[in-house]
Amino acid sequence: MNDKRIWTAALVVIGDEILSGRTQDKNVAQIAAWLNVQGIRLAEVRVVADREEAIVEAVNQLRARNDYLFTTGGIGPTHDDITVDAIAAALGVGVVHHPEAMAILERYYATRGGVTEARARMARVPEGAELIANKVSGAPGIRFGNIFVMAGVPHITAGMLDALTGTLEGGEPVVSRTIGGWVAESEVADILRDAERAHDGVAIGSYPFFREGRVGANFVVRSPDQAKVDACIADLVKALGDAGFGMTDGGI
Amino acid sequence: MNDKRIWTAALVVIGDEILSGRTQDKNVAQIAAWLNVQGIRLAEVRVVADREEAIVEAVNQLRARNDYLFTTGGIGPTHDDITVDAIAAALGVGVVHHPEAMAILERYYATRGGVTEARARMARVPEGAELIANKVSGAPGIRFGNIFVMAGVPHITAGMLDALTGTLEGGEPVVSRTIGGWVAESEVADILRDAERAHDGVAIGSYPFFREGRVGANFVVRSPDQAKVDACIADLVKALGDAGFGMTDGGI
Repeated sequence: MNDKRIWTAALVVIGDEILSGRTQDKNVAQIAAWLNVQGIRLAEVRVVADREEAIVEAVNQLRARNDYLFTTGGIGPTHDDITVDAIAAALGVGVVHHPEAMAILERYYATRGGVTEARARMARVPEGAELIANKVSGAPGIRFGNIFVMAGVPHITAGMLDALTGTLEGGEPVVSRTIGGWVAESEVADILRDAERAHDGVAIGSYPFFREGRVGANFVVRSPDQAKVDACIADLVKALGDAGFGMTDGGI
Repeated sequence: MNDKRIWTAALVVIGDEILSGRTQDKNVAQIAAWLNVQGIRLAEVRVVADREEAIVEAVNQLRARNDYLFTTGGIGPTHDDITVDAIAAALGVGVVHHPEAMAILERYYATRGGVTEARARMARVPEGAELIANKVSGAPGIRFGNIFVMAGVPHITAGMLDALTGTLEGGEPVVSRTIGGWVAESEVADILRDAERAHDGVAIGSYPFFREGRVGANFVVRSPDQAKVDACIADLVKALGDAGFGMTDGGI
């Protein structure tokens, strides 16, 4: 798309509750949007079960080919929280109680019954790891090199992302603009294809929907270059208008 | 967990719009819940970009180690819909226009402007594939052996799943029961672990939440064996009650 360095991240979502359909994941969209602001592209996601071999495989495959690797889930105090052990196994290091994490838990639980053995599990980290602050609920996230181990509960993850904002090296954020209209995408497929070909460095996505008994579509133009996005949108609006399809800026 | 045959499926979600954070995926949860009713366990999910190499890699890795493989997304009429070509490349077969799919599109578009070249793209299938009926919007899904190629729009996928209900061989569905209470999971971690150990063949998941300014957790007991689930739930309710934590059946 352009010859600038593109920074990528992968995400491993850890949890039987996502794979059983019990819980609707919200971390993919949240982390994707946050990464984009940092100038980092979410390149791939895997959802894996609470099984060490599955986590190890995903972590090792994805960290090798992305600049950053994020995980969500499995860092709580209960028996099904095995993420720390699995990451340590993937890295070939031991697991230790991080002294600063212990101190954080001691302060947090001072008025909540103290640090039990179960709660102390939340201070366990792969040996050599740093902490990611958690303003919401005490137990911190974990950073080990380019690996970021985050909570499963979305608003706790949001707090951890907040603590990381601006600290990761990235490139230019991808900017996007959306237009939409009451049109079947199959009627304008040629116009979309031609516009993408005519504008080097942009990608056009076409997202159909059915609403109020009618067919419509939104068209999203993406590029790290705002001027290219704007030029492509202008051409698309004109070509679609000439073909009889009025577009709404911002999509419908 | 038990010595019965466990049937597994994997899902590949195809689409830049999920990885950009623009669109919240709903197919993982929908397909997971549907698979469970068929007696098939969703074992792993990957979200990949609209790039042929990424789709081919995921499809070939996952179909080799699961009984079934599902994909969602990328089967529409526009230039960014590359799923059919990628699946054909993964299988090492060509792409053809399926005559029955063409006939379906001709009927569907008879009153909607006819089958244009773009619309005819939706009749393209890997050579040798069968169709999956789409009652919602005409263009069918695709079945090739143990691979099921579905739409990205969730309610179209729902219609395709409906067409497949009862046609796939599976094992016993996993049954689950949930109890919940206003308790920090870290306070009852030992009770959960002991209950899982005492009940062979069950898995207990612990899912904390923060609501109305209070800490709570739901505990989900899963097994293909309803009697084992019920016995484990009974023991858990008693042990948690003895420890001073009343549980709500069905969770909170």
